[in-house]
Amino acid sequence: MRVADVATRSIVSLPSRDAVEVIDQRWLPHRLVRARLDSVDAVARAIREMWVRGAPLIGASAAYGLALQARVDASDDALQRAAATLAATRPTAVNLAWALRRMLSRLLALPLAQRQRSAWDEADAIAEEDVAANAAIGRHGLALIEAVAQRRSGPVRVLTHCNAGWLATVDWGTATAPIYRAHAAGLALQVWVDETRPRNQGASLTAWELGHEGVPHRVIADNAGGHLMQRGDVDLVIVGCDRVSARGDVCNKIGTYLKALAAQDNGVPFFVAMPVSTLDLEVDDGLRGIPIEERSEREVTHVSGLAASGETVEVRLTPEGSAAANPAFDVTPARLVTGLITERGIVAASEGALRALKEGA
Amino acid sequence: MRVADVATRSIVSLPSRDAVEVIDQRWLPHRLVRARLDSVDAVARAIREMWVRGAPLIGASAAYGLALQARVDASDDALQRAAATLAATRPTAVNLAWALRRMLSRLLALPLAQRQRSAWDEADAIAEEDVAANAAIGRHGLALIEAVAQRRSGPVRVLTHCNAGWLATVDWGTATAPIYRAHAAGLALQVWVDETRPRNQGASLTAWELGHEGVPHRVIADNAGGHLMQRGDVDLVIVGCDRVSARGDVCNKIGTYLKALAAQDNGVPFFVAMPVSTLDLEVDDGLRGIPIEERSEREVTHVSGLAASGETVEVRLTPEGSAAANPAFDVTPARLVTGLITERGIVAASEGALRALKEGA
Repeated sequence: MRVADVATRSIVSLPSRDAVEVIDQRWLPHRLVRARLDSVDAVARAIREMWVRGAPLIGASAAYGLALQARVDASDDALQRAAATLAATRPTAVNLAWALRRMLSRLLALPLAQRQRSAWDEADAIAEEDVAANAAIGRHGLALIEAVAQRRSGPVRVLTHCNAGWLATVDWGTATAPIYRAHAAGLALQVWVDETRPRNQGASLTAWELGHEGVPHRVIADNAGGHLMQRGDVDLVIVGCDRVSARGDVCNKIGTYLKALAAQDNGVPFFVAMPVSTLDLEVDDGLRGIPIEERSEREVTHVSGLAASGETVEVRLTPEGSAAANPAFDVTPARLVTGLITERGIVAASEGALRALKEGA
Repeated sequence: MRVADVATRSIVSLPSRDAVEVIDQRWLPHRLVRARLDSVDAVARAIREMWVRGAPLIGASAAYGLALQARVDASDDALQRAAATLAATRPTAVNLAWALRRMLSRLLALPLAQRQRSAWDEADAIAEEDVAANAAIGRHGLALIEAVAQRRSGPVRVLTHCNAGWLATVDWGTATAPIYRAHAAGLALQVWVDETRPRNQGASLTAWELGHEGVPHRVIADNAGGHLMQRGDVDLVIVGCDRVSARGDVCNKIGTYLKALAAQDNGVPFFVAMPVSTLDLEVDDGLRGIPIEERSEREVTHVSGLAASGETVEVRLTPEGSAAANPAFDVTPARLVTGLITERGIVAASEGALRALKEGA
């Protein structure tokens, strides 16, 4: 998508095949900082410290991380160690494990001499498939927005949580793809952007993306969405996901579950944009089976922003001595999910539909 | 309650009867700033700009505001104008209107010469009654916490939203009164403190209060409460309220409704601490009948905190050009409320119970 009217992506495969260029998202929305990652350790650090984040982008980044390893040492042992390092960076998103498995199963089957080139080809393929999947999610989701637009005058009001935008993927985003499609098709939109504490991915990333694409939006506290639904100001919720279980439980950024409850209580459709790579048929009960990452207390007790001086300043919000807790994800039970918007169409959050979807691969 | 082991109150009636001393809560938790308010305009400003906040404290402050007016000009006209000024400061909390009505009906019935003294006496009475009501709420709520403690080992895990603590009242707090009672009784507690964006009253006020009383607590993002309930880490929710309708709909800080939904979904009892003065029998349907204050976008787009330099710094969280919306309260339907903890006991959130409660006055 566009930054200051120039098309870009969240991760760029350099033609020299010796590095990728990413946006160091920790500095957004106040500064656009690009970073060159040229080793598996650099990629692992970028994932762990959330220079890059978002399930699909983590997957693509990890694939390039293995490809960078293959440049240096493409032996079975070296690749497997690199994959283990990358897998350990973030526990919740399934795309990370999926991308690493795909890379390893492709590379370990090849003679050593072919691995370096094939690794980069495969990482490029993962990135391009992500873009194509999201573009297709956009087409399928567009129909949902069009249906609302036909029913009522005024802008279609979409609420989204966290950042499942192009910054969370290679391009288009998952939850935002239908929004960008609808905006491009000339439909009037009003996007409610959940701030998404504690890391503020909504306020800092989704709002920034939407601003650069010219999509009307308003940032709200995470607390506000229920009230907006009660007063009839939300037509549709679309969120992303980090892992979806076989029965359709949706693991996504902490707070998603609360919005799903409010959507159900107010008859607002609650859709989850899900590339098929985010489906984990190994897990049935998402509440019991998906590990929830606990992140640093400091993400809750401190926040960074732009001071009047023009500098980025970190400030403490809580009293000295007050502890914090910081679970990073929650699981929305399938019963609260209206449907999953996938690259192969919109499917029900049910075991039958999801197994059929995966088998259709 | 205590600050650095010294007993204090959120508003102190000075013996000179020419001013009240309040805590300018905008500077908490990083600085304890006291302010002397010596005119109705000073009080109105302190309420409007949230130096003082919380439904009961707003009511008591407004009462002293009228008493300060009575020192200067106690004519019917002057008192009524002062009451109108004070009433216009915040639209949602009913205690403000209640305290002003009570003051006016007492004062307008008296000869001019008696009004100044009676005004201060009446404001003092309102403040003392608030303290007594909250102490009683504490006694009734304590039984709920004791019941959990008898059922399970380990600390009783209470989740609260916003600040319905002693800083929101004259003393004790409403939602915190049972917590302080239980702590004093030696029960083990673990309080989950919702940060409460956008103004962070949980992170800055409730955490600060609990810290000074030595009550174990952890600050969490507003997004986290649902997940904590899902995994069985919350025994009880206790929140305050700004207005409760005749049928038991609870208007409270934005985001309360989301926690009530999660509590219901997980079988966690959801209690509301309510002094009877917060009950508004004039409104039946809280969702339609209670005006919801819309506050400045800047409360969402900017936040203040303590920088490493030791200064309080305001930083911007959102991209330039992104708009925000900031509804300050929401309404939790009576069906989601397990019970109301009042100074007269715990009652059901139902029209019959609430009318009987008020008539029992």
